[in-house]
Amino acid sequence: MRMVDIIEKKREGGELTTEEIKFFIEGYTKGSIPDYQASALAMAIYFQDMTDRERADLTMAMVHSGETIDLSAIDGVKVDKHSTGGVGDTTTLVLAPMVASLGVPVAKMSGRGLGHTGGTIDKLESVKGFHVELTKEQFIDFVNNSKVAVMGQTGNLTPADKKLYALRDVTGTVNSIPLIASSIMSKKIAAGADAIVLDVKTGAGAFMKTEEDSEKLAHAMVKIGNNVGRKTMAIISDMSQPLGFAIGNALEVKEAIDTLRGEGPEDLTELVLTLGSQMVVLGKKAKTLEEAREKLLEAIKNGKALEKFKEFLKNQGGDPSVVDNPEKLPQAKYKIPVPAKESGYVSNMVADQIGIAAMLLGAGRATKEDKIDLAVGIVLNKKVGDKAEKGESLMTIYSDREDVEDVKAKIYENITISSHAEKPVLIHKIITE
Amino acid sequence: MRMVDIIEKKREGGELTTEEIKFFIEGYTKGSIPDYQASALAMAIYFQDMTDRERADLTMAMVHSGETIDLSAIDGVKVDKHSTGGVGDTTTLVLAPMVASLGVPVAKMSGRGLGHTGGTIDKLESVKGFHVELTKEQFIDFVNNSKVAVMGQTGNLTPADKKLYALRDVTGTVNSIPLIASSIMSKKIAAGADAIVLDVKTGAGAFMKTEEDSEKLAHAMVKIGNNVGRKTMAIISDMSQPLGFAIGNALEVKEAIDTLRGEGPEDLTELVLTLGSQMVVLGKKAKTLEEAREKLLEAIKNGKALEKFKEFLKNQGGDPSVVDNPEKLPQAKYKIPVPAKESGYVSNMVADQIGIAAMLLGAGRATKEDKIDLAVGIVLNKKVGDKAEKGESLMTIYSDREDVEDVKAKIYENITISSHAEKPVLIHKIITE
Repeated sequence: MRMVDIIEKKREGGELTTEEIKFFIEGYTKGSIPDYQASALAMAIYFQDMTDRERADLTMAMVHSGETIDLSAIDGVKVDKHSTGGVGDTTTLVLAPMVASLGVPVAKMSGRGLGHTGGTIDKLESVKGFHVELTKEQFIDFVNNSKVAVMGQTGNLTPADKKLYALRDVTGTVNSIPLIASSIMSKKIAAGADAIVLDVKTGAGAFMKTEEDSEKLAHAMVKIGNNVGRKTMAIISDMSQPLGFAIGNALEVKEAIDTLRGEGPEDLTELVLTLGSQMVVLGKKAKTLEEAREKLLEAIKNGKALEKFKEFLKNQGGDPSVVDNPEKLPQAKYKIPVPAKESGYVSNMVADQIGIAAMLLGAGRATKEDKIDLAVGIVLNKKVGDKAEKGESLMTIYSDREDVEDVKAKIYENITISSHAEKPVLIHKIITE
Repeated sequence: MRMVDIIEKKREGGELTTEEIKFFIEGYTKGSIPDYQASALAMAIYFQDMTDRERADLTMAMVHSGETIDLSAIDGVKVDKHSTGGVGDTTTLVLAPMVASLGVPVAKMSGRGLGHTGGTIDKLESVKGFHVELTKEQFIDFVNNSKVAVMGQTGNLTPADKKLYALRDVTGTVNSIPLIASSIMSKKIAAGADAIVLDVKTGAGAFMKTEEDSEKLAHAMVKIGNNVGRKTMAIISDMSQPLGFAIGNALEVKEAIDTLRGEGPEDLTELVLTLGSQMVVLGKKAKTLEEAREKLLEAIKNGKALEKFKEFLKNQGGDPSVVDNPEKLPQAKYKIPVPAKESGYVSNMVADQIGIAAMLLGAGRATKEDKIDLAVGIVLNKKVGDKAEKGESLMTIYSDREDVEDVKAKIYENITISSHAEKPVLIHKIITE
């Protein structure tokens, strides 16, 4: 088999065989196929696309390019959730204990990553003592006994995907649905998921800016999952404005606690109920999405969801008393309001730019070496569609420095007040096949 | 400027600026732009094409990527001819002395190359003593005094093209009209041509198998030439069967002598008159193609073309007496006829496969290290459209080995005898803009 023939076949719109895809991924992983052939193939795929079968084969070839996590010692259906990323996305912190409280096992591998705020692990580290340095045995024991545990990413998972993603980043081939979908799905499957719930964000703060593209990506991933024997569902959710109110690490933990208590922001609550229902159905703890939602609402009402969060924190060394005393979380020195310059309705808040404002305060990392300030961030006081009187606070800046003129300027540039505004739709679509 | 932005711009169908194309070619030549970005751009160009302006810019950027030959010390318009390559293509050997005899300067850089037979230099070395090791001063003196000289390729011409061609060869991006056209044109321009005549072959033995593709390539090259100030014309000529009768080095020298004497094969004669007329017009030794053709026919008739060939051989150390005594050329040990197995008309002769048959005898090189046998080859006794009686010789094999069953088998496989056959059209089109 010659790589140049595979490139030409795809260039001409042909369908690659399972063997050809394996030959490419295996050769590329071990270095016998050079970058310059991989980038040419990626560009040909950009133009000629891949069939459902090719996408499934590419995903599984990447899964088998490195180590995979064996979660078979954990009872029940292991359901993983993946979000394509957004601003103020506190969902994992709420979802994990919430569905675990209904008996769905949540065995989560998580990372730190770059972004407007830290990753799930950074956020949880706002809780004093909490850590993710678990042995594999501890991890499995915690999930079997408490149904929830989070562990730092370990092992050499999907090296083909890592190598290919780095190459795509510099060769103009990131933006290809089959390549994005197989990249995401290969990571989830290698991490041991039996079933997968996908939260595909759409809008200014999302990777996919249009609903059409988001939907294509969601369908692509759901099809891959179902074709390789992992039940998969997806929703398309709004990311034109930040999700919930809080953007920042400790601030989001506080918001997660509020939400688990039934006092969270309306949009975040609705999103975790929607995603959570899918997880509960895939985890076989309810037959229908409606039944699952009922059970989740009940777990919030009767306090079981919040109790599960405390248990989870305690298992991993964290101080569970923060749940009832959130002032024990890291606190910023300054709370600075951002008053409305005129009266009207908030008609736009550019999500990614508000995220960058939080990053300016130190809430996220631009490079791997950056240190995160867990206390700082932004809390929205108004959301799109809300009325604001001149002088009323639109957002509150939580800062460890006094001068935040740069952050304020960034916020004012990216918020619009108009005479009329509508609330954006939160859940655009639910995709189950 | 970032290469990834240039790739994405082309991927989206944008037109690259002159500066962007220079940035790519300069960076790629010196190695600051890696192969994997160049191959991704080449694939994007394959799908999105290039405008006439981009093609001209790419050509000139490649010309300036290395040394260029300065032929300004030679009087007159230096006209170069380029053929896209075929089987039994003896045209250069005839054209060079023929147009030189009318005062058009022919300052030819030539190579050896791989193929069914050797390159122009290999063929000429069939003449005892002939060599191409000329100093630049000798080369220019010969052209100024005799109007014709051939020199081996020298200097670091178009390194960008060499590097890019090698990359395209292994990344499925050879077959792109803008990339092929700029590659050919950059080499001709770097070698000092003021004007260029292109012989674009079409059919089984050619790089471009269809007339449509051949025409696109011809138009592309003519446009590039005229856009960068080099008057350029092209013809599309048939390569469904081998050109002329002879395939082999000494055999083609003999055929060139016959043709210069007015006794050559009909198709080869017609082709050199067509290409030669264009060269004479571009070289300003005639006003119209018709006038040029008259003059060329006259040079054949009055013996001036043949005299020029002798002068050219003598200048470069060759024995001119071979012209009147062609038996002095290397002679093969065996002449083996290939008789027709049935009576009828020759309806097909697959050019490239007949070329491979000649190569099996040792007439060409498969790798740079191979030694060529100058004496061997094939001479066609019939061409497509000719009548053949059962037992009559279709071709004669000139061999230095007695057993040529493999060559015969190859020939029989690639020649068809039918009850009816038509002569293929030789000159498909003349393209002047």
